[in-house]
Amino acid sequence: MEMKKVVIKISGKFISPLDEPLVKEYAKIIDELYERGYNMAVVVGGGSTARKYIEHAPESKSLKDFIGIEAARLNALLLSLHVKNAIKKVPKSVNEVLELMSSGKVVIAGGMQPGQSTNAVSLVLAELMNADMVVNATTVDAIYTEPPNSPGAKKLSKVSYDEVKRILESSGWKQEPGRYELFDALSLEIAKRSNIPIAVVYGGDPSNVRRAIVEGICGTLVTS
Amino acid sequence: MEMKKVVIKISGKFISPLDEPLVKEYAKIIDELYERGYNMAVVVGGGSTARKYIEHAPESKSLKDFIGIEAARLNALLLSLHVKNAIKKVPKSVNEVLELMSSGKVVIAGGMQPGQSTNAVSLVLAELMNADMVVNATTVDAIYTEPPNSPGAKKLSKVSYDEVKRILESSGWKQEPGRYELFDALSLEIAKRSNIPIAVVYGGDPSNVRRAIVEGICGTLVTS
Amino acid sequence: MEMKKVVIKISGKFISPLDEPLVKEYAKIIDELYERGYNMAVVVGGGSTARKYIEHAPESKSLKDFIGIEAARLNALLLSLHVKNAIKKVPKSVNEVLELMSSGKVVIAGGMQPGQSTNAVSLVLAELMNADMVVNATTVDAIYTEPPNSPGAKKLSKVSYDEVKRILESSGWKQEPGRYELFDALSLEIAKRSNIPIAVVYGGDPSNVRRAIVEGICGTLVTS
Amino acid sequence: MEMKKVVIKISGKFISPLDEPLVKEYAKIIDELYERGYNMAVVVGGGSTARKYIEHAPESKSLKDFIGIEAARLNALLLSLHVKNAIKKVPKSVNEVLELMSSGKVVIAGGMQPGQSTNAVSLVLAELMNADMVVNATTVDAIYTEPPNSPGAKKLSKVSYDEVKRILESSGWKQEPGRYELFDALSLEIAKRSNIPIAVVYGGDPSNVRRAIVEGICGTLVTS
Amino acid sequence: MEMKKVVIKISGKFISPLDEPLVKEYAKIIDELYERGYNMAVVVGGGSTARKYIEHAPESKSLKDFIGIEAARLNALLLSLHVKNAIKKVPKSVNEVLELMSSGKVVIAGGMQPGQSTNAVSLVLAELMNADMVVNATTVDAIYTEPPNSPGAKKLSKVSYDEVKRILESSGWKQEPGRYELFDALSLEIAKRSNIPIAVVYGGDPSNVRRAIVEGICGTLVTS
Amino acid sequence: MEMKKVVIKISGKFISPLDEPLVKEYAKIIDELYERGYNMAVVVGGGSTARKYIEHAPESKSLKDFIGIEAARLNALLLSLHVKNAIKKVPKSVNEVLELMSSGKVVIAGGMQPGQSTNAVSLVLAELMNADMVVNATTVDAIYTEPPNSPGAKKLSKVSYDEVKRILESSGWKQEPGRYELFDALSLEIAKRSNIPIAVVYGGDPSNVRRAIVEGICGTLVTS
Repeated sequence: MEMKKVVIKISGKFISPLDEPLVKEYAKIIDELYERGYNMAVVVGGGSTARKYIEHAPESKSLKDFIGIEAARLNALLLSLHVKNAIKKVPKSVNEVLELMSSGKVVIAGGMQPGQSTNAVSLVLAELMNADMVVNATTVDAIYTEPPNSPGAKKLSKVSYDEVKRILESSGWKQEPGRYELFDALSLEIAKRSNIPIAVVYGGDPSNVRRAIVEGICGTLVTS
Repeated sequence: MEMKKVVIKISGKFISPLDEPLVKEYAKIIDELYERGYNMAVVVGGGSTARKYIEHAPESKSLKDFIGIEAARLNALLLSLHVKNAIKKVPKSVNEVLELMSSGKVVIAGGMQPGQSTNAVSLVLAELMNADMVVNATTVDAIYTEPPNSPGAKKLSKVSYDEVKRILESSGWKQEPGRYELFDALSLEIAKRSNIPIAVVYGGDPSNVRRAIVEGICGTLVTS
Repeated sequence: MEMKKVVIKISGKFISPLDEPLVKEYAKIIDELYERGYNMAVVVGGGSTARKYIEHAPESKSLKDFIGIEAARLNALLLSLHVKNAIKKVPKSVNEVLELMSSGKVVIAGGMQPGQSTNAVSLVLAELMNADMVVNATTVDAIYTEPPNSPGAKKLSKVSYDEVKRILESSGWKQEPGRYELFDALSLEIAKRSNIPIAVVYGGDPSNVRRAIVEGICGTLVTS
Repeated sequence: MEMKKVVIKISGKFISPLDEPLVKEYAKIIDELYERGYNMAVVVGGGSTARKYIEHAPESKSLKDFIGIEAARLNALLLSLHVKNAIKKVPKSVNEVLELMSSGKVVIAGGMQPGQSTNAVSLVLAELMNADMVVNATTVDAIYTEPPNSPGAKKLSKVSYDEVKRILESSGWKQEPGRYELFDALSLEIAKRSNIPIAVVYGGDPSNVRRAIVEGICGTLVTS
Repeated sequence: MEMKKVVIKISGKFISPLDEPLVKEYAKIIDELYERGYNMAVVVGGGSTARKYIEHAPESKSLKDFIGIEAARLNALLLSLHVKNAIKKVPKSVNEVLELMSSGKVVIAGGMQPGQSTNAVSLVLAELMNADMVVNATTVDAIYTEPPNSPGAKKLSKVSYDEVKRILESSGWKQEPGRYELFDALSLEIAKRSNIPIAVVYGGDPSNVRRAIVEGICGTLVTS
Repeated sequence: MEMKKVVIKISGKFISPLDEPLVKEYAKIIDELYERGYNMAVVVGGGSTARKYIEHAPESKSLKDFIGIEAARLNALLLSLHVKNAIKKVPKSVNEVLELMSSGKVVIAGGMQPGQSTNAVSLVLAELMNADMVVNATTVDAIYTEPPNSPGAKKLSKVSYDEVKRILESSGWKQEPGRYELFDALSLEIAKRSNIPIAVVYGGDPSNVRRAIVEGICGTLVTS
C-alpha cells in the first residue's frame, strides 16, 4: 500500500535543540521520500522551546499559544534548512500554505493559530492537499487503552476516531495544553470528517516514519 | 458597568450583501463607540456569500472552509470601508492581527483558519487583546433551553459556558458547519479558559450592540 | 495556428456562484491546455458578486471599484482552487504578477486597480508575458456592428481595434462601469500598442476557449 | 477657501536626482501643511530616472511601464525620507494605499499599474480619500488653449474637464507615453466622474503648491 | 542631559528564557520611558536560544547566522508582547524597520543579516532614527583595559571608539562569533562615522538602562 | 574545473542606465549558463543611480546607504526583466533570499542592509547557497599590488584573502563608501571564514564572467 500524498507531524521533542533533536535524521528521510516521489507537508511541534517561551509570556492564553506557535516555527525553520527539497519559508496562514504548496516542494510548518494544536494543523494540511495519510511521529509508540504506563494498558494496532476520543476522555489520560502530544478533539474531528488515516509511530526513531509511509507499518492506525 | 475593550462578532447575515446587510448602521455604531473611547476588534461571519462559494468549492473540507473564510474577509473589508476609524486591511494570520492592533484603530477580521469558526476567532481576539467582553450579534435574540422555535423553549438571561455546551449537545439543537451561528465547542472552551463574558444579542438591530456594551443589556449573558 | 502563450479573460458571469458558475468546466480546460504545453494567465471578472458588493460600498467610485476588484479576486481564488496547475494566490499588484509568473504555473488574477477593468488587466498581463493572444470569454458570442439584439446587427468575424472603438462609441452600444463585458477604451489601446490579437468567444460554453486557442476558431478576431 | 484633504502630484522632473530635484523644498512644504492640519497623499512621477530605465528595459510596453513605475517609486521613497510625517513605505497596490492611509500620516506613492500614468494614480488616490482637490505641480505653469510655446496660445485660468480633453485631442498638443506631464484621458475621466477640482501649478517653485492649497491660487483650475 | 531618541541593545542573556530572562522588568522600564516621551528602538540578542539553534544548524556560516537571527527575533517578539507601547511585529529588513518606525511606537528588533551582529544592528537603527545615544545593556558592567577578569584590568569610565577597537584587538580579549557581547568592528565603525555615543551598562539590572538614559550614568561611555 | 553553484557580483557601472549598461549582454550569459546547468545568484551594485540618489538623501549615513540599496535593487530588477530564468522579484531580506532560492531559478539581488556593501552581500549569498565560487565583475581587470594606475602596480593572478586586506589597507588604495568596487573588510572576512574563492574579472566585457565560471580563467583569483 504505497501512498503518494502524506503529512508528517513530528513532535517538537525530536526537533527542538532543547530536547533530543533528530533534525538531520528527519531531514534525510524527508529528502529520500521526496526523491522517491512522495508529495509531503511536514508539521513540527514546539517542544521544550515552546514550553520555555510560554512560561515567560504574558498571562493571556492566546498570547501564550502565539509565542508557542512562533517557537514551533523556529523548529520548522531549523528542519527546513536541513531538508534539500524544502521551501525555506515557514507559512503563517493558510493562504501561505496554499501558495507554498503550489511549488511542489516540501512545505514545513509549525503552528498556525491560538486554540489549535500542531496536531490539528497537520490534519488541516492533510485536507488541503487531499493527503492519503498523516503520520504522527510522537513520544509514545502507539495508542493504548489507558495511559501507556498504567498497569492494564494494552497497545491498539488499529482503532477508530471515536474510540480514541472515548479513550482520551474516559481514561483520565489527560492531556494538558501545550502538551497535546497525541490528539486533541479538533484533530480527531477533522480526521473523521475527511476520513484521513493517522499512523501513530514513535518519533524517537525517524525511520519509523519511512516504515509507516512506505511499508504501511505503524504502532497504531487510527481510521474510521 | 462600562467596558473598555470589546470584541464584536457580527453574523455574516447582517453584513453580506446577499442577505440583509446593515453595514452602514454597524459602521456608525462602531465609530461612535470608538470615539467614546472603546477599544474594539470586530469579527464578521461569511453569511450567504460564504455559503454560495463553499457550494462551488472543491470537495476538500478545508478548502471549503478556506473559501468561506475568504468570503467572510470580503464582508469584513466591506465593513471596514464604512468604518472611519478602522484599518482598511483584513488580517490573515494572528501575526497580522497583533501588528494591526498596535495601531489603536479598529481591526476588522473575517475567518482565520479551516476548522475554526468566526465565533472561535472572536474569542481568540478577545484573549489577544485581553477584552472585557465579547458581544455576539447573531440571528437569534438569546440562548434558549431548546432550539428557539421549539414549544417548550425558554429564554435564558444568564447561563454558564458548561450549560451552553450541554444545551447544544443534548437538545438536538444541531449546528451545521458553516452555520455555527451561536457557538461551537472551541469558542466555549476558549471563553471558559479565559473567563470572557459573552453577550448574545439579536444582530438584526445594530443598536443592540451598543446597548450590550454601554448599558450591559443583552439577550443572554454567558459567563463562568 | 497553435499558440503558446495565452491570456484567458473569463466573464465573472461564468465564475461567480451568484450567476451561472462553470468553474469546474473552466478548470478542466485550463489544466488540459497546461498539460499540452500552453503557458497561461487567466483573468476573472467580478460578475454578480462584484455588483452586489459595489452596491453596498461607500459612495467613492474608487472604493466601489476596489470592492469590485476584491470580489473578482474571490472568483479568481475559487477558480484557482479547482485548477491543479494554478498558483493558489491571487496577485494584488504587477509586482506579484511578475513574481508568480516566474513559477511557470498558471496565474489567475482578478482586478488590479480602480479605474481599470479586468479586460484591461488581461491586456496588461498579455504584454507582461508577451502573449500570442487574448481569449475573451464573454457574454456575447461575437462583436456585432450594433448592439447584438438590434435588428440590423451583423456579426463580425474579424475587426480592427479602431473599428471596435468606433462601434462602441458611435452605435450607442453603451457599456456601463462594472459592466465592461467586452472592451473599454484602455483595453483596446493596449491591444493596439502591442498588436495583440483578441479572440472573442461566448463564455457560456467553456470549450469555446479551447477551440479559440487550439484551433484558432472564435466569434470575432480583433486585430490591427 | 481652505481645503482639508489634498492629493499633490509632483512631476518627476522636480524629484528625480537626474533632473532638478527640489526634494528638500517639497518635503518642507508637505511637513508644514501636515502640521497645519492638512491630510495629504502625494504622487511622484518618474522623471529622467524613469526614462533612462525605460530605455534599457525589454521591448514589452507593460514591462517598460513597470520599470518606469519602479523608478517613480524610488523618487517617492527619496521624498518620503525627507518628509518627517510621511510613512517610509511606498505602496505597490491599492490595498497597501488604503492600509497606509489608515495611519493618518502622509502616504507618498509612485506609479501603480502599467497602462496608468502617475496622473491617473493621483486621481484614484483622491477618490479613495475623498479629497477636496488635486494639485498638479507640473512642468508648465498652466493649461493653454494650444501647446504653451505656440504663438496664439492663451493661458486658461479656469477650464472644464471636457474642454481640457478637447484641447489635448484637437490641438496637436500630443503627449507621449512616459511624458503625460499634464493629463491623460483616464485622469480626466476619473476627475470628471467624481468632480474633483485639479489645480495646475508650475512645480519648479514648490511654494506654488502651498499657495494652491492654502490660498486657492493656481495657474489653471480644472473643474466640471 | 536628558535624551530624546534612544536605541537600547539588550544582551540575549537577559531576554532568552533559557538564560536569566528579565523580560517583564525590561518591558516595564521601556513603557515607563515611552510614557515620559522617549522615542525608542530596542534590539535584542539571541542568547542561549540562538546558541542552541546555531549548534544544530547546517554547516554554512550564513545559515548559522540566519537561525541565530531568527532566535533573536523570537526573543524580540517575547519582549514586544510585554511592552504595552511596542509594535507586535519584529522587522526582517531595513524597509520594515523604517515602515514600523513611522508609527511612533517602540520598534523591537532582533538580528537582520548574516555577517552583522545585533550590536551592529543597534547602531544602524541609531543612524536611521538619528538617535542621541545607544545604551548597550550587556553582560559586563563596563569596558576594561583588558578582559574584565584579568588581574590588571582597569575600568574605563569614558573611552574613544578607536581606543575600544585597539583594546579589543590587542588585549587578546577575543570575542567569538555569536558572542560579540560588547562590540564588533562594524559596530564601532558605524558609531564613529555618525558620532553616536554608546553607554555600556550591566544588563542584569534593567534599571541601569533607565539610569543611563535619564541621568546619563553608565559603566563606560564610548564617544569620539 | 567546472563549477556548479556560483554567485556573480556585477558592478553597478555595467547595469545602471546612467553608466554603460550591458544589461542585455549579461542577461544572455546568465541564461546561457542557467541552461547549461549552473545554479546562480546574482548581486548587482548601484552604480551612478545609487550615487545620484545618495547625494540627495538626508544626512543620516544609514538612510544614504538605504537609498543606495534601493537604487541597486532597481538595477537588479532591470536585469531580472531581461533574464528569462530569473525570478522577477528582488529580495529585501535574507528570509526572502532563502525563499526565492528554493525555486531553483536565478535570484537577482541588490543590496540588503546599511553598513554592508553589495560585495559583502554576494559573499553572504555564496555562503547561503554553499557556492563554489564568487565571480566579481568589476571596474578593474584584476587586483594589483598597488592602485592599478600607480607606476609600480603589478597584476596578481592569485592572491590570499589576507594579502588583499593588507594591500587595501597599506597601499593607500583607499576605497570610499558607496564605491567599494572591489572589496571591503567584511567581504574578505566572510570569504575567508568559508573559504570561498573569488574570481576578479573586468565587468566591461560580460563574456569574462562566462570564462571565469566555465574555463576558470580570471584576472585574479582570491583564495585562502
